[in-house]
Amino acid sequence: MALVFLPALARMAVCGGTHGNELSGVYVVQEMERQRKEKGEGVWPIPVTTVLSNPRAVKECRRYIDTDMNRCFTRDMLSCPITASSPYEVRRAQELNNLLGLKGSTDATDMICDLHNTTSNMGLTLIHYTTSDWVTLHICKYLQTKITKVPVRVLVLDVPISDSYSLESVSKHGFTLEVGPQPHGVIRADIYNIMKEAIYLTIDWIHKFNSGTVFEGGDVEAFKLIKSVDYPRDPETRSLTAAIHPQLQDKDFCLLKHGDPLFLSFSGETVNYKEEETLHPFFINEAAYYEKGIAFHLGKKIMLKIPTVRVQKD
Amino acid sequence: MALVFLPALARMAVCGGTHGNELSGVYVVQEMERQRKEKGEGVWPIPVTTVLSNPRAVKECRRYIDTDMNRCFTRDMLSCPITASSPYEVRRAQELNNLLGLKGSTDATDMICDLHNTTSNMGLTLIHYTTSDWVTLHICKYLQTKITKVPVRVLVLDVPISDSYSLESVSKHGFTLEVGPQPHGVIRADIYNIMKEAIYLTIDWIHKFNSGTVFEGGDVEAFKLIKSVDYPRDPETRSLTAAIHPQLQDKDFCLLKHGDPLFLSFSGETVNYKEEETLHPFFINEAAYYEKGIAFHLGKKIMLKIPTVRVQKD
Repeated sequence: MALVFLPALARMAVCGGTHGNELSGVYVVQEMERQRKEKGEGVWPIPVTTVLSNPRAVKECRRYIDTDMNRCFTRDMLSCPITASSPYEVRRAQELNNLLGLKGSTDATDMICDLHNTTSNMGLTLIHYTTSDWVTLHICKYLQTKITKVPVRVLVLDVPISDSYSLESVSKHGFTLEVGPQPHGVIRADIYNIMKEAIYLTIDWIHKFNSGTVFEGGDVEAFKLIKSVDYPRDPETRSLTAAIHPQLQDKDFCLLKHGDPLFLSFSGETVNYKEEETLHPFFINEAAYYEKGIAFHLGKKIMLKIPTVRVQKD
Repeated sequence: MALVFLPALARMAVCGGTHGNELSGVYVVQEMERQRKEKGEGVWPIPVTTVLSNPRAVKECRRYIDTDMNRCFTRDMLSCPITASSPYEVRRAQELNNLLGLKGSTDATDMICDLHNTTSNMGLTLIHYTTSDWVTLHICKYLQTKITKVPVRVLVLDVPISDSYSLESVSKHGFTLEVGPQPHGVIRADIYNIMKEAIYLTIDWIHKFNSGTVFEGGDVEAFKLIKSVDYPRDPETRSLTAAIHPQLQDKDFCLLKHGDPLFLSFSGETVNYKEEETLHPFFINEAAYYEKGIAFHLGKKIMLKIPTVRVQKD
């Protein structure tokens, strides 16, 4: 296995409340800030910046005020001129880019962990952009090994960095941490504990890496987003005519085969999966995706080879 | 067992979307309206009025626009003068009282079923106001017998009719149908099917009753609301410092004993139940109750004796 030397990770940020009604991240960030206040800056073995990303939406316990902030971190939106009519989230995204970026620059934060919840039964899912970010993939592998209470899956979106739209794309490495199922506007202790454990393990990995630990390469199982499927809708009103089928509900990352049930209409008819290609559904029945026209995403399982990594000596 | 003769039930209403993000009721009402359009007024054996209670909140998929409408049906609020600054829900509550009431009058609708969802693991819970409404309690008993997929529980609030604040208090009989767990803003087929079954069984009971069927009396197990418990909060910011304990989460209607865990703080400490009285918690971790300062309600199990009932002959 090839050995790759990589720069140390000097700056890490943990962000919660990018969606204001996804409460685990809000409370993880608040608890980290309380710990820092109580125990001082040396409370973690590496410096960690904590950020409440969308404070106005958190206060109102809503996903967003004007627009979904986690779609505002493209190069275009981060550089557009701000006027009196600019959405709150576009302004806030530019503030966060100034604080944690600049996106794509050498000054950018090394690692952002952006904390999210989903109403889907997705356990812990780590979402990021490329199949060749060895640091991020090594941390994913570490979390897959260490966390045993829930399944830990890796989801790769594979879009160019300029088009990448979510907060963690501002940093050099990083991922979105999705934990579910949890209703929006609710905090569950079990989901909170998994998120906190994942953050502490990430800090642990970075500290070990910076201290010279060699992390062995190998295979990382991941899922690649292929396409999205909408709910059956009334052609005129656009209102839903069916819900996710009970046999598909809560079965995120199962294998979907030709003929499997997808939807159950409100009058009782089953709609089946008609494609020949077997794929893996996820974000099944996510509350925030109704308005985006997404009943679930479909992905393909891939195997990524990652090299052994070690920190560069000065 | 005493035999009581009661008037036939001429008018029934099924109301959904009293809270705009509780989607099962919205889709049950829409489906009933579709069926009426397709099959005509005779689609059910009794006349049924269907109502989308808070159409503005449904459109925005929010609990309410200005204020919680399901607290707006007290005598005082139904008779207060409407001005330009009146909350939308107060205006709409008065409209619904004109449509389905008037509350407390002989003209009022005989039976309202108001459809709700909860994020709590409460199965099907039938909520109403008195321990002596034989029609409502007989329907509860009927649903308890017929529905086997989820637990069916009866919750009695026992407040005077003038202070009763929820939509079904406008009618002579009736209940709130709470079905969960379901995240707000999400429709689950399993929860939708239970709600639809409960409504159809209620229609079935009323039709049989009106047709002269004798319903035997007996005992009905119910829960009576005793008090509410708030989350532990920071005394200054009022922010939560703990979540529902994993051992209590999803255990609605279990028996809570001295020493049982209630909360798990964000730093990991357990808060236990300190009272001597064993009670039954419900509405555990309901999303909409954070703003009301309610982590869960506590109730007492009671046994209600109901007489045999039969419709009055003309």
